[in-house]
Amino acid sequence: MTGERLIYLPLGGAGEIGMNAYVFGWGRPGQEQLLVVDLGVTFGNMETTPGIDLILPDIAWLEERRERIMGIVVTHAHEDHIGALAHVWPRLRAPIHARPFTAAIARLKLEEREIVPDEALHVAPTWPGTVTIGPFRVGFVPISHSIPESAGLVIDTPGGRIVHSADFKIDRHPVVGEAFDSAVWEAIGREGVLALTCDSTNVFVGHPGRSESSLREPLGQLMREATGLVVATTFASNVARLKTLADAAREAGRSVCLLGRAMKRMVDVAQDTGLLTDFPPTVAPEDAADIPRENLLILATGSQGEPRAATAQLAAQGYMGLTLREGDTFLFSSRTIPGNERSVIRIMNQLSEKGVDVIDDEGGRYHVSGHANRPDLETFHRLIAPRWIIPMHGEHRHLREHVKLAEAGGFAAVLATNGMMVDLSGDAPRLVEQVETGRVYLDGTAMIGAMDGVVRDRLRMARNGHVTVTLILDEEEQPLGEPWCDLMGLPERGRSQDSLRDLLESELSRFVERADARTIRDDERLEKEMIRIVRQTAQNEIGKKPEVTVVVSRLA
Amino acid sequence: MTGERLIYLPLGGAGEIGMNAYVFGWGRPGQEQLLVVDLGVTFGNMETTPGIDLILPDIAWLEERRERIMGIVVTHAHEDHIGALAHVWPRLRAPIHARPFTAAIARLKLEEREIVPDEALHVAPTWPGTVTIGPFRVGFVPISHSIPESAGLVIDTPGGRIVHSADFKIDRHPVVGEAFDSAVWEAIGREGVLALTCDSTNVFVGHPGRSESSLREPLGQLMREATGLVVATTFASNVARLKTLADAAREAGRSVCLLGRAMKRMVDVAQDTGLLTDFPPTVAPEDAADIPRENLLILATGSQGEPRAATAQLAAQGYMGLTLREGDTFLFSSRTIPGNERSVIRIMNQLSEKGVDVIDDEGGRYHVSGHANRPDLETFHRLIAPRWIIPMHGEHRHLREHVKLAEAGGFAAVLATNGMMVDLSGDAPRLVEQVETGRVYLDGTAMIGAMDGVVRDRLRMARNGHVTVTLILDEEEQPLGEPWCDLMGLPERGRSQDSLRDLLESELSRFVERADARTIRDDERLEKEMIRIVRQTAQNEIGKKPEVTVVVSRLA
Repeated sequence: MTGERLIYLPLGGAGEIGMNAYVFGWGRPGQEQLLVVDLGVTFGNMETTPGIDLILPDIAWLEERRERIMGIVVTHAHEDHIGALAHVWPRLRAPIHARPFTAAIARLKLEEREIVPDEALHVAPTWPGTVTIGPFRVGFVPISHSIPESAGLVIDTPGGRIVHSADFKIDRHPVVGEAFDSAVWEAIGREGVLALTCDSTNVFVGHPGRSESSLREPLGQLMREATGLVVATTFASNVARLKTLADAAREAGRSVCLLGRAMKRMVDVAQDTGLLTDFPPTVAPEDAADIPRENLLILATGSQGEPRAATAQLAAQGYMGLTLREGDTFLFSSRTIPGNERSVIRIMNQLSEKGVDVIDDEGGRYHVSGHANRPDLETFHRLIAPRWIIPMHGEHRHLREHVKLAEAGGFAAVLATNGMMVDLSGDAPRLVEQVETGRVYLDGTAMIGAMDGVVRDRLRMARNGHVTVTLILDEEEQPLGEPWCDLMGLPERGRSQDSLRDLLESELSRFVERADARTIRDDERLEKEMIRIVRQTAQNEIGKKPEVTVVVSRLA
Repeated sequence: MTGERLIYLPLGGAGEIGMNAYVFGWGRPGQEQLLVVDLGVTFGNMETTPGIDLILPDIAWLEERRERIMGIVVTHAHEDHIGALAHVWPRLRAPIHARPFTAAIARLKLEEREIVPDEALHVAPTWPGTVTIGPFRVGFVPISHSIPESAGLVIDTPGGRIVHSADFKIDRHPVVGEAFDSAVWEAIGREGVLALTCDSTNVFVGHPGRSESSLREPLGQLMREATGLVVATTFASNVARLKTLADAAREAGRSVCLLGRAMKRMVDVAQDTGLLTDFPPTVAPEDAADIPRENLLILATGSQGEPRAATAQLAAQGYMGLTLREGDTFLFSSRTIPGNERSVIRIMNQLSEKGVDVIDDEGGRYHVSGHANRPDLETFHRLIAPRWIIPMHGEHRHLREHVKLAEAGGFAAVLATNGMMVDLSGDAPRLVEQVETGRVYLDGTAMIGAMDGVVRDRLRMARNGHVTVTLILDEEEQPLGEPWCDLMGLPERGRSQDSLRDLLESELSRFVERADARTIRDDERLEKEMIRIVRQTAQNEIGKKPEVTVVVSRLA
């Protein structure tokens, strides 16, 4: 029998940005006690996952080992770290640990899904306090990020110390919450760190990151100089940004109105947990219209162009009685996540059509990132001085570049993507198993596997349209009438200028008339032939092959 | 009867980037003789136009007036200026005028659609030569852009001179083709310009544009320092970039291989028309594999992530016998057009997985834009010194900003978007008519109107899936068996964990059993009710309402 080992296994987030789910384990091979760090989601899109609201990591591997899960730690309350928790918790039922703000958000999310989390949800102490979770002693170390109370983790195990950076930046003046404290991290490093699992998001950004507090002056100037209403959008969870914007507004004589459910909720939770103490009093949306435009700042959700959020609605028709007009200013105090450009640009143009001045983050004047840039990563590597660096939280290209960066700094580094179980117990990290990982889609209220073919069929219908073919055969297996077609998502006519439907039906009729008894008796063959005819005829006529549903009814 | 007037009417390109189509007219109101400038396309996307290959401007307005179209001018051979020409020319049949390179591309495109363009296609003289097109004397003035032989237009009319910038940048060392010549443009301006219709693409870019020639040094360094194969992708039409890349490769001892049909075609046409005289000899793709990797540069199509292009195929499995591996370098000498990020990033990650070093344009070291930046626009305004500036070639936000920029420089400016007919004959430009404009989709080989509902149905099926309901009624209008369902793009089961199909069928059966004779006799009512039941049942079960096709068969 082999001895005990320390393993690292990313189930999401390593090889993608989003859907973070990391597992650490200690014990005999195949019997490790497990610690889950974060259970996040990523979002669907029309291009690859139409109709899908959320994408979750497949937790089948964890579920099969649920009796070995000692705890779930949530590092911070961003959706890509906490979003899957309430969806999958009933299948894992392990204790949850998080700092107060994150725990408060987790509670809301669990309650929304009618899970009463009292026994499961534990508020973690702040470092140097620790919590013991099975064989792991876990410390929640304050680390600066774009949401309050992000926690880097110190995970002490019998096999050595792991530092898990979580999402972080080096910000010594973060406006809300704790500053990045080099001394603390250096002390943690000095005690000896086996492995650092480290955020890779901004590894390609060459300049040092800028502090949240550097936005105060430019935002102040903007609020003072704007002559009409100012609307600003940013992630609701960026409480420091909301604070900076609100403070700048107050100084410029503007009242603040929070628009969008998430905006209100985040400010409420931040106030309830004592993180946000001097946020200006806000006016309710229904009262905001009475305030002179030049004395108002609206903080609106929807910086990524989400169609139902406040920003999209303000740009279209208006929202809760508030409308925009010539002379107003709309600030995107945010970065557009790749893939959302089209939606955001559409909104910007709608605003432009109303005469609203749109200010985006071109040049970074009104937005700073929440992730450590390349030089900041180097700084963090040196502070922790681990034996090995394992990049996480990044696409493959980010992880690969982060490995190179670490190696250039003199550290050994390991590229481990989702599903790669790495044994950290030996002289060098070793890939010991490739675990099957995957994605699960939340489609409306149903969960479907990414490989179930549901989305593939949708994409095909979206590209090629759909034809239903109906044929009735009587008791003697003679066609009763002719086959007919119903088209959806297809042009009415093509090359010949005849009706596409008529053409398809006449080709199918011809086939049925001539088909021999064996074909007619054979459902499968009949279906296959009719699909072929529809697709071939359509290809000739309109240059594409539709998806086809064939319904053959036999009167028995 | 009123007198003659000079009109400007954008049918595409003013309020969007892409699909350029501008009209100028001179004559009595409603009887103007017309000059069409450019007939371009834009590209579809899964998000808003799944299955659509190309989007063309709706030319119904022009077609109704085709006997009044004196000519079609093509300023340059980019798809967003020339791409619709071959598709719509048979409906307009007016003479086409372009400079030699552009005319050669136009000829290829017309011939591909089996149009023999001999009589229609005229090679335009270079300024100060002009061509008379009805009441217009049109001069093709060389102007620098990211394709050879872009032409700004001087359009002299009885109502005054118009300068149409076309797509341009101020590049005094453009590598291939004519440099921007301030003296020429200044002279044109000095003779008096009524209106300047001007490119707005880069109005938000604050720094002066950089010359194509500035890339020579960094690209040379990259080719020298790379140790393995180098692949570079850029727009095939950017002949100057291909030249710079090829020259840098030659100096670094690398042979050049052109990969992708468009790449070969553009180089051929540029050589045939005498624009490209000293391009290095190329090796055929089938011979490239025999060349040591460190002695090879591949120039590949597909910089925007197009799935069938050389870049995407190289990143996936390989292309024409060429495969990539650890130690190779892949350069995106291009900018990702908003909306294409997801596809490009997917390719970058595939390359990263192969161990290929991906270099993108982060920082602009390996790419310069083909459009005039904000300070360059100001320079051009001053050179032309028109009475009015009419921004074009931009989304609404670009046009609006360009108006502001022009006004800040002391010029009167007009914001005119697609469909706005502007009378330039009076003391000030005047909106005289709002023409109905629109988009036409090329779907496979069929043309469909953007408002036909075809794409709307596709998007709905993509989001919500599709259910076919079949019901057969016998001669007595009694249901023959039960209604049944075929599902496509839908989860197999939802909340109850029962088969969604079974649930839908049993709800429909129950309805049919209970339905009264009047309902059963009424096709429309029956269909409506069954659709309602399917959608409601699905909503309860999976939280979304599918698209439904109902087929009721009555045995007569």
